[in-house]
Amino acid sequence: MSMEILFLGTSAGIPTKKRNVSSIVIRRGGEYLFIDVGEGTQRQAVKAGIGIRRNMKIIISHLHGDHVLGLIPMLQTLCLFKRDIPLDIYGPRGIKQFLNINMSLLDIEPEFMINIHYLSDGSIYDMGEYTLHAIKNEHCKYSYSIAIVEKPRPGKFNPEKASKDRIPVEYWGRLKKGEDIEINGKIYYAKNYVSPPYRGRKIVISGDTRPFRKMIKFSKEADVLIHEATFANDKIDRSIETKHTTAIEAAKIAKAANVKVLILTHFSARYEDASILVEEARKIFPAVFAAEDFMRIEVPLPKKHLESSYPHGY
Amino acid sequence: MSMEILFLGTSAGIPTKKRNVSSIVIRRGGEYLFIDVGEGTQRQAVKAGIGIRRNMKIIISHLHGDHVLGLIPMLQTLCLFKRDIPLDIYGPRGIKQFLNINMSLLDIEPEFMINIHYLSDGSIYDMGEYTLHAIKNEHCKYSYSIAIVEKPRPGKFNPEKASKDRIPVEYWGRLKKGEDIEINGKIYYAKNYVSPPYRGRKIVISGDTRPFRKMIKFSKEADVLIHEATFANDKIDRSIETKHTTAIEAAKIAKAANVKVLILTHFSARYEDASILVEEARKIFPAVFAAEDFMRIEVPLPKKHLESSYPHGY
Repeated sequence: MSMEILFLGTSAGIPTKKRNVSSIVIRRGGEYLFIDVGEGTQRQAVKAGIGIRRNMKIIISHLHGDHVLGLIPMLQTLCLFKRDIPLDIYGPRGIKQFLNINMSLLDIEPEFMINIHYLSDGSIYDMGEYTLHAIKNEHCKYSYSIAIVEKPRPGKFNPEKASKDRIPVEYWGRLKKGEDIEINGKIYYAKNYVSPPYRGRKIVISGDTRPFRKMIKFSKEADVLIHEATFANDKIDRSIETKHTTAIEAAKIAKAANVKVLILTHFSARYEDASILVEEARKIFPAVFAAEDFMRIEVPLPKKHLESSYPHGY
Repeated sequence: MSMEILFLGTSAGIPTKKRNVSSIVIRRGGEYLFIDVGEGTQRQAVKAGIGIRRNMKIIISHLHGDHVLGLIPMLQTLCLFKRDIPLDIYGPRGIKQFLNINMSLLDIEPEFMINIHYLSDGSIYDMGEYTLHAIKNEHCKYSYSIAIVEKPRPGKFNPEKASKDRIPVEYWGRLKKGEDIEINGKIYYAKNYVSPPYRGRKIVISGDTRPFRKMIKFSKEADVLIHEATFANDKIDRSIETKHTTAIEAAKIAKAANVKVLILTHFSARYEDASILVEEARKIFPAVFAAEDFMRIEVPLPKKHLESSYPHGY
């Protein structure tokens, strides 16, 4: 199943000509996960050619305006589109109140269900073929980092070996599922016929935050770590003051977590061009680049087998 | 003093690739009046090169999302910009609650005063050199049409005639102000030395509404009438149902009100190109065109003197 990351907004706080405020879409097959929905996100989605899909879910990392103020207009549009299937929204405490009060004041009356799921430190939601993880980060009272972790895919069955060992075909299904079987008193161990499970993809999104130690474990071995890098190194004081991260700090997290790729985003409006941030980060972690609005990244399925050390579940 | 209309959003309800949702800026000298602030307005303002000015006022015609949802992010940006002078917002009932609740939920804490002024049917605000008028229209419970009417400029003083009649120069100032004067028992009437006042400019903005009779008087002789035209004539049923206006209905208002220019805006997203609406309207009122995002229109000072029939104040 294909998986793609699409950046709809890469600016911190204030939109610029080139960058809108925060929104990232993860498309997995036909499903669209919107992670943060800053002002103007729906129009960015129209411009990106994806629009507002029936098959979407929304995740809000924290209730700051530049991450959530596109949500009410998006709901209004879904009403105009006559959406009739439920919408799942994952977000921090306060989001229900934010939605309900605005919908009431602005006469927005959805005919679809809105299911609110609260994020908390360590929360895990089973989304079918993947899990959604959140941990509290260091930005504001209820702010979270998010991980999307695909469940392992079953290992490869070896029919030649099963044939050779004269295991009847009707038992193969159970072996494929990893079940050991007994035939006439002899035990056949599944692990001898099926390779270990393959690991799924793991994408981690820092949200707004100061760098924090738990993030290293949380983003361990991620295929893609999308980390905020609001400031360059000379603005470290401002970074601390506003609870954001510098490009170098993000690179240190990526290195310690041994991620495959680091993508920086959420740039202060002062950086017309984010290349200074990439240059700073590259000295520490080479596989880094800067997100741009409308940039798309295909995330390939890892060929790696799952190892016991693979951090599934935090 | 120069005056310009700048369209920042011309789409109804839903943004499209080409059109953002409602916002119109009237620049008068160095002052910027934002009339409606739909989602994404601040970014449109950045793209238009005006940004968010210190010297601005905001007018909200009604509390529907596509007219007001850019307001909270704009306030957030003003906070980041460390605005320290008061901001005046004119809007319908409910706007204070909308602002206060959102600012509280989203941790937006302006260090500038926000002065809320309520619009009501027939309200007139004295803005110094012009007046701001509102009348209730026919869209939702608290929805208004807006007029910006410049106060008359003094007529032209005729110094040759005053000299010829031997009126001492020290009396000229009083004559210029329209005061009759008496010198040695003889009365000199100001009207003989000063032409009648010149009328100022008048710009009327319908807001969202069904066409309604009072609008004709309200927009009488306007230099520019900006009227919503959400639908073409074949969608008249939809127009009635959603309380909007067709292009033909807008043209009929413009004709009855004898305005100089009619600009159509607030087009349903189905009209990729608004020329069908202009064609329909032109059959009834020739001086019509369609607003486009980022379109600017200079409004020249009228040369006309004020007539007693000129509708100042409704």
